[in-house]
Amino acid sequence: MDEHISPVELQKAYRLINHGPTVLVSARHAGVDNVMAAAWACALDFAPPKLTVVLDKSSKTRELIERSGAFVIQVPTVAQLQLTNAVGTLSLQDVPDKLEKCSVELFGLEGHELPFVAGCSAWLACKLIPEPHNQQAYDLFIAEVVGAWADARVFRDGRWHFEDADPAWRSLHHVAGGHFYAIGEPLTAQEQVVTSASS
Amino acid sequence: MDEHISPVELQKAYRLINHGPTVLVSARHAGVDNVMAAAWACALDFAPPKLTVVLDKSSKTRELIERSGAFVIQVPTVAQLQLTNAVGTLSLQDVPDKLEKCSVELFGLEGHELPFVAGCSAWLACKLIPEPHNQQAYDLFIAEVVGAWADARVFRDGRWHFEDADPAWRSLHHVAGGHFYAIGEPLTAQEQVVTSASS
Repeated sequence: MDEHISPVELQKAYRLINHGPTVLVSARHAGVDNVMAAAWACALDFAPPKLTVVLDKSSKTRELIERSGAFVIQVPTVAQLQLTNAVGTLSLQDVPDKLEKCSVELFGLEGHELPFVAGCSAWLACKLIPEPHNQQAYDLFIAEVVGAWADARVFRDGRWHFEDADPAWRSLHHVAGGHFYAIGEPLTAQEQVVTSASS
Repeated sequence: MDEHISPVELQKAYRLINHGPTVLVSARHAGVDNVMAAAWACALDFAPPKLTVVLDKSSKTRELIERSGAFVIQVPTVAQLQLTNAVGTLSLQDVPDKLEKCSVELFGLEGHELPFVAGCSAWLACKLIPEPHNQQAYDLFIAEVVGAWADARVFRDGRWHFEDADPAWRSLHHVAGGHFYAIGEPLTAQEQVVTSASS
């Protein structure tokens, strides 16, 4: 495992995707690995951490997830702009050597029989919570996050450090077609005098 | 209606939130209006456009939505950093004049009995699709987008123009506590030689 990859406490795992990045979804079943891009992934709960992701019926990755019940959500970087657009555009059904063509390098993490994409800034190992109605009616998948890691060069001490890291580490935020925005500058709101947990 | 507020074609409404901004959720029932912040909102479908949003059981806005079956998702700007943090921190239950305290100004749009927050960059009028299991088990709400508008100074011709607009128009992306990132610079991926709709 790369020396920079550090575990993230599960109760802080939501922070890896809270700012709305486009993610890569990867899965493995019966010796087949695949990776796709998804702009429609979102945190759902803090503890245990859960998330949602929308997976089109035509996607090969969805089929692997339905069969294995597990997947990885990972946060690609500006350095991976081409890779992210490519895995979101090519299909394993049409291009059997898709991952090679898209320059995707996979690695493993002990205890998880899953393909992790090298070079990302964060990884969330997910266990599908089967919800057949959501999956069929809305293409909506719910999962529990059972492991989380980040590259300490851009996420450490429980928070992102985009402002101190090389700009190539910034997250990608898809708009449409090949168009993305990188995440920008940090902003901190002044504290409220009266606070409350509900709003 | 403000001269800059322009309708957005429904089939392009997903683009208003595709880059993962933190949003404001507003609702009205029986003469009560409320506004809260939500980082966990996400596109769900293109046509008809649908979206998901996570609403905690303690939130007063959720109660209004459960009763009225409708709400607005709007995209706040860097200029609204304090407002966004404030409506996400104060509760109408504890602070009856919450909206005034948070400097929220509401306006109406013909044909929609909903409170729209002035100064945002985009607005999506939503009709709840009742899914009691998702709402109870996951605090997850699904809705159809029935109307969409944007401020033409930052979204026009079907796309965001953050790079040409005043930086105060940039979207907010919440991390945790009072910490946010603004959206950053545009990036365009090179076209793939082989393309496919599924991946």
